[in-house]
Amino acid sequence: MSNNFEFEKVHESEALAKHQVNPYGPNPSDFLSNVNNFQLIDSTLREGEQFANSFFSTEKKIEIAKALDDFGVDYIELTSPVASEQSRKDCEAICKLGLKAKILTHIRCHMDDAKVAVETGVDGVDVVIGTSKFLRQYSHGKDMNYIAKSAIEVIEFVKSKGIEIRFSSEDSFRSDLVDLLNIYKTVSKIGVNRVGIADTVGCANPRQVYELVRTLKSVVNCDIECHFHNDTGCAIANAYTALEAGARLIDVCVLGIGERNGIVPIGGLMARMIVAAPEYVKSKYKLHKIRDLEVLVADAVQVNIPFNNPITGFCAFTHKAGIHAKAILANPSTYEILDPHDFGLKRYIHFANRLTGWNAIKSRVDQLNLNLTDPQIKEVTAKIKKMGDIRPLNIDDVDSIIKDFHIEINTPALTPRKTKADEEPLDLAGEPAAKKAKKE
Amino acid sequence: MSNNFEFEKVHESEALAKHQVNPYGPNPSDFLSNVNNFQLIDSTLREGEQFANSFFSTEKKIEIAKALDDFGVDYIELTSPVASEQSRKDCEAICKLGLKAKILTHIRCHMDDAKVAVETGVDGVDVVIGTSKFLRQYSHGKDMNYIAKSAIEVIEFVKSKGIEIRFSSEDSFRSDLVDLLNIYKTVSKIGVNRVGIADTVGCANPRQVYELVRTLKSVVNCDIECHFHNDTGCAIANAYTALEAGARLIDVCVLGIGERNGIVPIGGLMARMIVAAPEYVKSKYKLHKIRDLEVLVADAVQVNIPFNNPITGFCAFTHKAGIHAKAILANPSTYEILDPHDFGLKRYIHFANRLTGWNAIKSRVDQLNLNLTDPQIKEVTAKIKKMGDIRPLNIDDVDSIIKDFHIEINTPALTPRKTKADEEPLDLAGEPAAKKAKKE
Repeated sequence: MSNNFEFEKVHESEALAKHQVNPYGPNPSDFLSNVNNFQLIDSTLREGEQFANSFFSTEKKIEIAKALDDFGVDYIELTSPVASEQSRKDCEAICKLGLKAKILTHIRCHMDDAKVAVETGVDGVDVVIGTSKFLRQYSHGKDMNYIAKSAIEVIEFVKSKGIEIRFSSEDSFRSDLVDLLNIYKTVSKIGVNRVGIADTVGCANPRQVYELVRTLKSVVNCDIECHFHNDTGCAIANAYTALEAGARLIDVCVLGIGERNGIVPIGGLMARMIVAAPEYVKSKYKLHKIRDLEVLVADAVQVNIPFNNPITGFCAFTHKAGIHAKAILANPSTYEILDPHDFGLKRYIHFANRLTGWNAIKSRVDQLNLNLTDPQIKEVTAKIKKMGDIRPLNIDDVDSIIKDFHIEINTPALTPRKTKADEEPLDLAGEPAAKKAKKE
Repeated sequence: MSNNFEFEKVHESEALAKHQVNPYGPNPSDFLSNVNNFQLIDSTLREGEQFANSFFSTEKKIEIAKALDDFGVDYIELTSPVASEQSRKDCEAICKLGLKAKILTHIRCHMDDAKVAVETGVDGVDVVIGTSKFLRQYSHGKDMNYIAKSAIEVIEFVKSKGIEIRFSSEDSFRSDLVDLLNIYKTVSKIGVNRVGIADTVGCANPRQVYELVRTLKSVVNCDIECHFHNDTGCAIANAYTALEAGARLIDVCVLGIGERNGIVPIGGLMARMIVAAPEYVKSKYKLHKIRDLEVLVADAVQVNIPFNNPITGFCAFTHKAGIHAKAILANPSTYEILDPHDFGLKRYIHFANRLTGWNAIKSRVDQLNLNLTDPQIKEVTAKIKKMGDIRPLNIDDVDSIIKDFHIEINTPALTPRKTKADEEPLDLAGEPAAKKAKKE
């Protein structure tokens, strides 16, 4: 680098366009990536039923299943039919709806459960068994040989019925790697449709996920499904990294509801994926339905949509600081990686506060269809910021200040106040010296 | 692998203990990792003031600053003193509090701002300028040469005042890599305390972050600070991955409040970090104050703590499914990577629902100080599940069912009902055949 800090000018947009179409798309070095080719298994009616507040009536389950199907999820996973009598009936009812999405049910790795599951009319069965030493010791108490034997029995039985079968370990990231690869290789050989990795306690981090999926990808010749809990806030990122490494299917729930603080939220994952694979995501999923889907489920389980929810949080597309508002007004891409219109939503420039700037206020003046010069707008902005230092402002406050100002500079008899303000220097508080003098 | 699927028994706990103390700790291959040596810059009073709902009075700012200091954050970042008159006064007031945390203010890369900032009494100044083509074109309109020149002028001025200086690019992940490395190398040479990377629009993913931080680490010889927005739900994971790659400082806000849906939340990051570096995190931060801190800020900006918030979400430590409850009762580590007691909180076994199991009900029977045999508990569990199929249950419902059952089996004259139930086989609905017959 030269000493006078001269940087060579680069015509970035052209250079970029030539080499890479979407710089946030799949990394070219991830040749197994499914970022552009993923599928969603929605588990709102299984994992989501394990959410503390959930009690879904049959009617509500059907309403949610239809909404998920309409949105475009590839699979809908339901609570085990052996969980309760009504769970079995509901499973049968949803299978009869004739949805485009395939219907799955989620059972323990046990023939008793499998026999009931295959009779419900599902398109596939998701089998799970704990493989970590924690779960082997404190949950089912079985060793890896027992796990392998029951897995083979259950898998071959489900396959014999002509429906899909997934085998997943539970608590995969606290399981012994050699044990894991052994069991996955076994079930892959006998021909499962998918193997699953589950971060049951929410402990995994992205690079760990990448390593495990990449390793597993070299051991099995079926699709890999991933299930990530969100206890440590990494569920969405782990899902994305898993797809980069070659996983194909991600378990999601509406608003992420599930055990404890839940799993990958469908909305948050869409936010992540639309940045990486915009065409794929937009063509496959009805993104403008995310809001309705979230409202439906939030009402059903009696929670509020989190204020900071991706996409649908009340301020996800609100821009406040003056410097942000200025740039957003010139080009929304400056401070937005997501386009609210893709989700049937709108952006909002928050101008009623002390951090506001004159570009935001100018935009509001235009909306109010008032005619003020730039120096006048700067003057009224100073007034608004001053008021914003004293108390919270709402839009009416700002509009009143602007309108009063507008009246003030236009009304007074025949005094050419407007022209005067243009020429006069503003003092620190943003008021023309003349006006200040008049007050005194 | 042998054909009869025999797995060799491994004494995992001993083997693990020998090779690695904490399997979720820093990856040994990340020799630059600061997972065990990170610092927090809390920006609730700067980035957080850009949250749509924020209006902090001077008193509230002081209350929040004191609470952050008590929690143990290393730095507290405040709104630019040029944002408004009150912003400057508040900055001066907080500098005078004599907190342990260092006080920073955040300004544009401009001498006008720097001159005001150094007079406020802050311990350091955080300088930022947009370097992406988006921001260069639509925000400040300057080229990289201009950026370098003003950066050098501002940095040397702030250094001359004997206080800390950080230089950060804005929108770093959409900036030209060569431009970025050039400017960082320049400012590192003239001696900044930290350089900052900012994912201003929330587009970065973890492996991208790792690459950029790792590359930057080889170019500068100062600390690296990272600022991650959460638009695509990856802020916490990006922060973790940045530390793995050698970043030292993470910008956080209470509840993540900031522009749009905000940045890395302090609570969520603590959840992530305690898994990786338990001793460091527990010795440095008062984790049991997270809840109070979040309540303080949530009240101030009039939002609810999200239902799915890490650690403090209302059900973050609630276990519902029967299979989960069983294992949790045997050993909480089975389904918990976080210990609620580390945060001054408690776990909760949700037993009043149709997914409940007899282990959870047994635990409740013990809490009620009643004496039932295991077969009796299985019987009453079946009753509870049946009722849970019909409507949502609360704890009182379950307690009533248990107590009624307990009275029923103990009262009836001298009939040895208890012994009888023990011996009788249960039918599918979980009721002893004899009792069913009696009803009919």
